[in-house]
Amino acid sequence: MRDVSIIGIGQTKVGEHWDVSLRHLALEAILGALQDAGVDQVDMLLAGNMLSGELSGQEHLGALIADFAGLRGVEAFKVEAACGSGAAAVRMGYIAVAGGMVDVALVVGVEKMTDRKGSTTTAALAMAADADYEAMHGLSFVSINALLMRRYMYEFNVSHDAFAPFTINAHRNAVNNPYAMFPFPVSREKFENAKMIADPINLLDSSPICDGAAAIVLCPTDMVKGLRPARPVRVLASAVATDTVALHDRRDLLTLEGAALSARRAYQQAEVRPADVDLFEVHDAFSIMSVLSLEACGFAERGQGVRLGLDGEIGINGKLPICTMGGLKARGHPVGATGVYQMVEAVQQLRGKAGANQVANARLAMTQNIGGSGATVITHLLEAI
Amino acid sequence: MRDVSIIGIGQTKVGEHWDVSLRHLALEAILGALQDAGVDQVDMLLAGNMLSGELSGQEHLGALIADFAGLRGVEAFKVEAACGSGAAAVRMGYIAVAGGMVDVALVVGVEKMTDRKGSTTTAALAMAADADYEAMHGLSFVSINALLMRRYMYEFNVSHDAFAPFTINAHRNAVNNPYAMFPFPVSREKFENAKMIADPINLLDSSPICDGAAAIVLCPTDMVKGLRPARPVRVLASAVATDTVALHDRRDLLTLEGAALSARRAYQQAEVRPADVDLFEVHDAFSIMSVLSLEACGFAERGQGVRLGLDGEIGINGKLPICTMGGLKARGHPVGATGVYQMVEAVQQLRGKAGANQVANARLAMTQNIGGSGATVITHLLEAI
Repeated sequence: MRDVSIIGIGQTKVGEHWDVSLRHLALEAILGALQDAGVDQVDMLLAGNMLSGELSGQEHLGALIADFAGLRGVEAFKVEAACGSGAAAVRMGYIAVAGGMVDVALVVGVEKMTDRKGSTTTAALAMAADADYEAMHGLSFVSINALLMRRYMYEFNVSHDAFAPFTINAHRNAVNNPYAMFPFPVSREKFENAKMIADPINLLDSSPICDGAAAIVLCPTDMVKGLRPARPVRVLASAVATDTVALHDRRDLLTLEGAALSARRAYQQAEVRPADVDLFEVHDAFSIMSVLSLEACGFAERGQGVRLGLDGEIGINGKLPICTMGGLKARGHPVGATGVYQMVEAVQQLRGKAGANQVANARLAMTQNIGGSGATVITHLLEAI
Repeated sequence: MRDVSIIGIGQTKVGEHWDVSLRHLALEAILGALQDAGVDQVDMLLAGNMLSGELSGQEHLGALIADFAGLRGVEAFKVEAACGSGAAAVRMGYIAVAGGMVDVALVVGVEKMTDRKGSTTTAALAMAADADYEAMHGLSFVSINALLMRRYMYEFNVSHDAFAPFTINAHRNAVNNPYAMFPFPVSREKFENAKMIADPINLLDSSPICDGAAAIVLCPTDMVKGLRPARPVRVLASAVATDTVALHDRRDLLTLEGAALSARRAYQQAEVRPADVDLFEVHDAFSIMSVLSLEACGFAERGQGVRLGLDGEIGINGKLPICTMGGLKARGHPVGATGVYQMVEAVQQLRGKAGANQVANARLAMTQNIGGSGATVITHLLEAI
C-alpha cells in the first residue's frame, strides 16, 4: 500500500445557489482543487452525492461532471452513503490511489438541495433512514435525531441548553470562513429561544438545507515532489464502519457503534490516540450528533460529551477544537458534499492557512462524516507534512 | 497489484417481484454468492443500484443491505453509474482487492423497478441521460436510443429487420436460463410485428423494466486455495471509460468512444485481442446498443455490426456467442443489477456450468456494462482457471 497525500483543495460558498446548476457547482470546486494541486489531468473522478436523482432529476453524475470539467474519457462514478457520501467518495479515491490502481484521483462532493420545496427536500433526506420501517411511519430525519436527543437528555439528566456551546462555537468559527452559509454569531439566548423543529431539536440545533460543492485531489505521497503542489497533507488513516440504519435495531440508542468502530480502526491505522488529535471536524448535522460522535470516538465518556462544550474545550484555543470553519451547522451541510468540505477545512488547518481560525501548531486533524443517524461512518486522520 | 478472482456467484430470477422488497432481493443474491464462495464474512460490501431513491424512497443501500445480510459493521457503499451501476460496483470491489486494501469483497447489484407506474419508471430512467439538456426536452431514455437507431439505419442503409437476430438470439438463450424473465423464443415475424415504442425501436428491440439482484464475491487469486471455493474465475482485466452523457456533445453519434476506450484498455491489461474472446456478454439494453458496442469493441467494422447477427455468428455455436443466458433483452435488465448478472453468467460459462447454453471450450469471457447511451462503459475480461 502506498502512502497518500491531498495535494489540492477547492470549495464553493455554501448557500442557496438558485442561479447555479449542480454541474456548475461541482465545476467551481473542481477547478479550484485542480489549480491548487497544479494538475490538469486526473486518472479517476469520484462524485459524492446523495440527492441528485430525487431533487435534480439527474443520476449518472460521474460521467456528467467528468465531461463538464474537461475530463472526458476518465473513469468516473458516483458514490452514495446518505449524508456520508462525500467522505465515502474520498474513501474510494483513497483506496484506488493507496492500492496503486490510479495515481491522481479527483474527488468532488456536490449537493443541490434548495431548488425544491422544503417538504420535498425533507422527504428526500428521509431516504438516509430506513424507508420501510422508519420513514413509512412518518419519521423525518430530524425527528429521528430528536428521538436520540430526547433519550440522551432523559438518560443522562441533561438540559437542552447544555447543547448550546456546540452551536455557539460553530457560528463563532463561521464568522471567519468566507465559504460559510451563516457567518454570524449566535448567542446563548438566541439558541434557547429558537423555533422548535422537532422537539427537543430547535432551529439552532440543526444544520441547514443548502447547496455547495467541495473537491480534493489525491496522489501518492512519493509523487508529490514531482507535482510541486503548494502544501500537501498526508492521509494517515482512512476507515469506515457501518451500523444498522434503523434506530430500533441498535443494541444501545446512545452509543454510535459505527462511529466507535470507524474511529478505532483509524486510530489503529495511524497508531495514534484520541489525545493526539489537534482538531476534529465533527459531523454536527444536529448538536446531539456532535455529542454522540465525540463520545464514540473516545473524546468523552458516555453521557459526558456535553461537558466538552460546557467546559470550553471545543473552541479554537480549547483542548479539542471542533468544527473549526463553522461545521455542518454554520458553514452548512450540503449533504453529499459535507465529507469533502471537512477534508478541505482540515487541510486548511494543517497548512496553517485557516486565518483567524487557525489552530496553533495543528499537526494531526481528524474528520468524521456520518451517513444516517450513525449507520455509515467514515473517519480520516490527516497529518501536516 | 494483486491478481483477483471471482469465488462465488448468486442471482435471483429476474421478473416482477411485487411481493419481495429491495433488501430481500439483494439478500437472496448475496446468500447464494456467499454460499457458493464458502465464506460467511467479507471485508467490504458494494451495492450497485441506480433507482432505489426515486422508485423505493431508499438511499443508503450499503449500510442497509450489509446489516440485513448479517454483515453489520462492514465497510459498505452504494456505487452509481446509471445502467452501468452494477459493473461500477464490481470495478470498485476489484480496485479494493487488487490494491490490497481488502481481501474479500462482496458486490451486489440490485434494482426494483416494477412497484411504480411505468411512466414513473420511464421518467426515472431518463436520469441516466442529461437532465438539463435532454430529459427536459421530453426525451425518454428509449427515445434517445431511437435517435441512435434511426441514424444508424439511415447512415448505413440498414433495414429494421436486420436487427432481428439479436432479439431472436437473446430469447433463444433465455429458454435455458431458469433466472430469465422471458424464457421463450421469439420468431422473426413476431419481432417485425411487435408494438412500436419509440420509432424505430419496437417492444422487441427493448429490454424490460423488471426487478432482480445478482452478487459476486472477489478475493485475491493467491487466497483461493485457502478458501476452497468450487470453481474460481480470474479477473484478467477491469477497465472503465466515460464519454459525454448528452448525445449532442459527441463527435460522432454512431461511434461509442467510451466503449472503444474501455475495451481497448481491457485488451491491453489482459494482453488479448478481440479474436481471443470466446463469449461476450453485451449490454443489449436496445438492439442498437448491441450493434454499436460490438463495433466499438473491435468485433465488427463501423456500420457492419448487424452482419454478426445476420451471418449467424452470435449464437452459442457461432464465432462470437453473445448474451449467452438471454442478455438484457430476455434475461431482463434490472438496471443497477445488470452488470453483476453479466459477470455471474460469464462465470457460469467459464466454469462449464452453463447447461444447454454452454459455449464449448470457453476460456476467455468479456462483459461490458454501459451507463446511459454509452457515457460510462465498464469492461471486464474473465478467464477460466
